[in-house]
Amino acid sequence: MVPLSLGRLEGDNVICGYHGLEFDDTGRCVYMPSQDTINPSACVKSYPIAEKHRFIWIWPGDPALADPALIPDMHWNKDPAWAADGKLIEVKCDYRLVVDNLMDLTHETFVHGSSIGNRAVAEAPFEASHSDRFAYITRWMENIDPPPSGANNMGGPARSIAGRSSGSRRHAPSPSMSASPKRERAPRRATGPRASTAMCSTRSRRPPTRPVSISGPSPAITISAIRRGRMNCAKASPAFSREDEVVLEAQQAAIDANPDHQFYNLNIDAGSMWARKLIDRMIEQENPAFSPRVVAAE
Amino acid sequence: MVPLSLGRLEGDNVICGYHGLEFDDTGRCVYMPSQDTINPSACVKSYPIAEKHRFIWIWPGDPALADPALIPDMHWNKDPAWAADGKLIEVKCDYRLVVDNLMDLTHETFVHGSSIGNRAVAEAPFEASHSDRFAYITRWMENIDPPPSGANNMGGPARSIAGRSSGSRRHAPSPSMSASPKRERAPRRATGPRASTAMCSTRSRRPPTRPVSISGPSPAITISAIRRGRMNCAKASPAFSREDEVVLEAQQAAIDANPDHQFYNLNIDAGSMWARKLIDRMIEQENPAFSPRVVAAE
Amino acid sequence: MVPLSLGRLEGDNVICGYHGLEFDDTGRCVYMPSQDTINPSACVKSYPIAEKHRFIWIWPGDPALADPALIPDMHWNKDPAWAADGKLIEVKCDYRLVVDNLMDLTHETFVHGSSIGNRAVAEAPFEASHSDRFAYITRWMENIDPPPSGANNMGGPARSIAGRSSGSRRHAPSPSMSASPKRERAPRRATGPRASTAMCSTRSRRPPTRPVSISGPSPAITISAIRRGRMNCAKASPAFSREDEVVLEAQQAAIDANPDHQFYNLNIDAGSMWARKLIDRMIEQENPAFSPRVVAAE
Repeated sequence: MVPLSLGRLEGDNVICGYHGLEFDDTGRCVYMPSQDTINPSACVKSYPIAEKHRFIWIWPGDPALADPALIPDMHWNKDPAWAADGKLIEVKCDYRLVVDNLMDLTHETFVHGSSIGNRAVAEAPFEASHSDRFAYITRWMENIDPPPSGANNMGGPARSIAGRSSGSRRHAPSPSMSASPKRERAPRRATGPRASTAMCSTRSRRPPTRPVSISGPSPAITISAIRRGRMNCAKASPAFSREDEVVLEAQQAAIDANPDHQFYNLNIDAGSMWARKLIDRMIEQENPAFSPRVVAAE
Repeated sequence: MVPLSLGRLEGDNVICGYHGLEFDDTGRCVYMPSQDTINPSACVKSYPIAEKHRFIWIWPGDPALADPALIPDMHWNKDPAWAADGKLIEVKCDYRLVVDNLMDLTHETFVHGSSIGNRAVAEAPFEASHSDRFAYITRWMENIDPPPSGANNMGGPARSIAGRSSGSRRHAPSPSMSASPKRERAPRRATGPRASTAMCSTRSRRPPTRPVSISGPSPAITISAIRRGRMNCAKASPAFSREDEVVLEAQQAAIDANPDHQFYNLNIDAGSMWARKLIDRMIEQENPAFSPRVVAAE
Repeated sequence: MVPLSLGRLEGDNVICGYHGLEFDDTGRCVYMPSQDTINPSACVKSYPIAEKHRFIWIWPGDPALADPALIPDMHWNKDPAWAADGKLIEVKCDYRLVVDNLMDLTHETFVHGSSIGNRAVAEAPFEASHSDRFAYITRWMENIDPPPSGANNMGGPARSIAGRSSGSRRHAPSPSMSASPKRERAPRRATGPRASTAMCSTRSRRPPTRPVSISGPSPAITISAIRRGRMNCAKASPAFSREDEVVLEAQQAAIDANPDHQFYNLNIDAGSMWARKLIDRMIEQENPAFSPRVVAAE
């Protein structure tokens, strides 16, 4: 038993990287070495997939309910006007800690204080809301100092900016988009730089080093697209994402070391609470027998 | 308590590397620092050993049954005509996965496709058999294309070879020998290159990072001898053995992540099934109270 | 939940490195981002501390009993005449194995045989004793060969030295001091080099990679001061401490692999037995409900 991810594709068939067993796209085995008769029970589970917006979307639930229309709109991920090509970050933590991170942008102030964050972000009031498919937060900041990266990119001394908007939207269960919200949500004119980021956090295929909860440690986060604007986030990216990794992995380690600790929520958790509720609801709809409430302490 | 392997020899005595306790070859302590009277219960277990064929053979069972005549013939390991000097490979897996690997050479096709394997190996019929002390497989391939390393070593373009034989023999519990079988087992004349490899896989002394089954993770494989022929396997060796390590460690990780998974055997597993049966039988004979069937899922 | 050690100080307040929660020196939360009302239950435990001798001393027991007078005298740690500045060593083992190491200097002979140890240390008789607050051992060696580092530092060929004294004192629960004892304890004149070392071993804050016993793996040892004398220990230090790390980590691995093993004590363990008893007694006094006898096998 070796993961098929170590194998290779031949047309639509997957060839196992150890002994060459070959599976077609329904999961049926069509070749075994040194063997003429193939046991029909030799098959692997197959899932409906769709390729869209340069991602492969897997539907792990009832195949009859798979609906490509449910895939969130990430069209700019194929748009040449959005230049940055994304990168893969592996973080040793429950992927829902990444959801929390992206749904509470006050961490920009304290974790990314040398680039995108300053005191204004943590002090601005914010709104959290949700629809059937996603949770979102928005904050609007007026007459604030630009964050350090904004100041640098504008090529001059730091000056106050008339308005900066910041938002995060989480489609359950995966993509988070941090973006300047649409005009109708932020009707006041923003004069500062504009940037938009989308991240898909998923459970990693790599075997974790400790017992797996349903949420799975080691999510792989794909920063799929960063729009180049006057604030060039892509440049700051390696050190920047390392800042998040440090806190996320420390947080997971603290959770593991204190399995019975009761956490309580702050106001700033409102966005992630909605995002997690939507994930739990999707898991329940997908597999009613499974209760997401028995998973590892969060 | 520190492993005596961190110590050193003084004559036939072993000196502990931490506090200098000295043990003679019966396991009796003959020196303690700052202490005149030595507690007679301060002793370590000793085992019958034999040095043969440049290996040290340890007999862990009833000392009365230790019989050097049971040591498999690996005389070519001291023979200057067999030039390569062997190397030690540590793989993070149950050593029986290495047995499986060596007893099923169809993996050459899929794992070592850039050197010794090609489609012919996986397609050739093979024979699996066994004696009291070893299991073996043989396959005979006629009018086949040479594998890539064969073609390279012959210094010319790939051409079909009239016959290639390939075999693997597993002495329980340790050495595996992959070799061109003896003439009487393959009476047809082989015109291709000849190569022979012997490997001893053992449980490693290094502490494993997860609970130990009887089989022990982290076997150390010693490629004890590779005969230089027209196909120089030794040259291909570092990348070559890394190919095996990747699948073996992925296989162990998949087993660990799916402890209740039921495996079923393919035709190609016939050789390793016999080899594992011989190992289980030796463990039972050595220690009837121990049932090898309770070990970690394989 | 992220360790506050990832945060920073602002005056006497600690700012969390993730979302900026701010705690004063009583542990009370005085700031939460985007939140005006602070839940009074949002607090962290605080401990009495004292800064003395360039260390921070934490009192984990009943705050009413915290008494700075109990801090051992390590005044030379601030004394410019003691030149070396110390270093931090992290060892993956129960910190009590470090106590054992420092309270039995016969290991110098076998672990540090290329620098400070020679046969004389292991052969010299020693005295172990204790007070309410510390255990100590002393040994006096007469007419011995100098150890290799002594010979080197004296700039000439090895010659016998008239006397060498060596002692170790362990204040429960932390600092160990290896030093030439005071004149009154060793009235005979020592002509060899003089050196003195103090080490504080503590449980590390880093999350361990395996279940935590009360003793905690991964102690951080601080060699706080090494007096420069004719024998310059500081020069030998990196390789020197690595010698200890190898045996300590091997010892911990052997303990972990043999949880039911019964250990018995040698004469040379007399010092560490007293040191461990003092630690156990302090834990009991601090928290009578906790029995130190249930911790992981040692």
